Amino acid sequence: MTKEKYLKQFIRTIPNFPKEGIMFRDITPTLEDKDAFQVVIDELAKLTKGYEFNKIICADARGFLFGSALAYKLKKGVITARKPGKLPLPGHRCSYSLEYGENTFEISKDALNKDDKVLVIDDLLATGGSASAMIKLVKMSEATPVLSIFYIELPDLKGREEIKKVSDIPVRSLISFEGD
Amino acid sequence: MTKEKYLKQFIRTIPNFPKEGIMFRDITPTLEDKDAFQVVIDELAKLTKGYEFNKIICADARGFLFGSALAYKLKKGVITARKPGKLPLPGHRCSYSLEYGENTFEISKDALNKDDKVLVIDDLLATGGSASAMIKLVKMSEATPVLSIFYIELPDLKGREEIKKVSDIPVRSLISFEGD
Repeated sequence: MTKEKYLKQFIRTIPNFPKEGIMFRDITPTLEDKDAFQVVIDELAKLTKGYEFNKIICADARGFLFGSALAYKLKKGVITARKPGKLPLPGHRCSYSLEYGENTFEISKDALNKDDKVLVIDDLLATGGSASAMIKLVKMSEATPVLSIFYIELPDLKGREEIKKVSDIPVRSLISFEGD
Repeated sequence: MTKEKYLKQFIRTIPNFPKEGIMFRDITPTLEDKDAFQVVIDELAKLTKGYEFNKIICADARGFLFGSALAYKLKKGVITARKPGKLPLPGHRCSYSLEYGENTFEISKDALNKDDKVLVIDDLLATGGSASAMIKLVKMSEATPVLSIFYIELPDLKGREEIKKVSDIPVRSLISFEGD
């Protein structure tokens, strides 16, 4: 069995959540299974081979689950792109639209500087809004984004095109669901 | 230098956030420093020595950063105690009050069962509300909580007493700030 086929067993599809017409990809089974969780982090690490970076930026809240485990494995620092009002010293802020609704990310003002090379990670690449916002926050901090990786990609929502509008960094994902 | 003294260098204290009179302990410097992040996860792992568990429940959102990295290191499953409206299939729900305000956690209905032994983790033990709620969710699922651990403890807020009201599991923390 391929790694993609193996991991798809640990994603539950819930139709019409959080809104009518959305096929929600629930990753909690991947997290709950100790073996699947090891595999997904190890496979995400493989996607980063050949890229040099010292920090990983991840999206509040599900992105934290992948970003921090990967940062621990690869011995990198973790930058949290947080929802508004959570940081005592927000420095940069970026709003974006997502598959359903709108959101804003903030990062600490001294989280990144011009010497930092940054991996961007999230659980899901859908319309690309949250990834583009994280890339913009990296750039606002004068740091360098080097690669973006995702556990799941929904190619029909054209997230790669959205990312391309803000950066030419490579986009890689572990598994994809077409026809959504 | 003790590990506690070392780690305290990576916590920033912000007075009067998010409310007047609160000394906010900002953990972002710990996360951002690749060495400090390794140390905190390795030290949290040491706190669990001698305890048998197969899953780690962690609190949305900062608890995810510690719970998932620790779960990866120790090869355990991750259970996410989520804020309301995030889970497509919430099964158990528990409200609690915290140092400032109120909140509710939900877990998936099939996240835990009676054979599961569960470590409870969060970044901060303050009044104990979120930890108690996670312990209650474990019990509602008929699983067994075995230990609760925290990166930071504010002993003056008597979180241990709050946890004691719902469970007699041990409570351990890496560093503490008294006089808050």
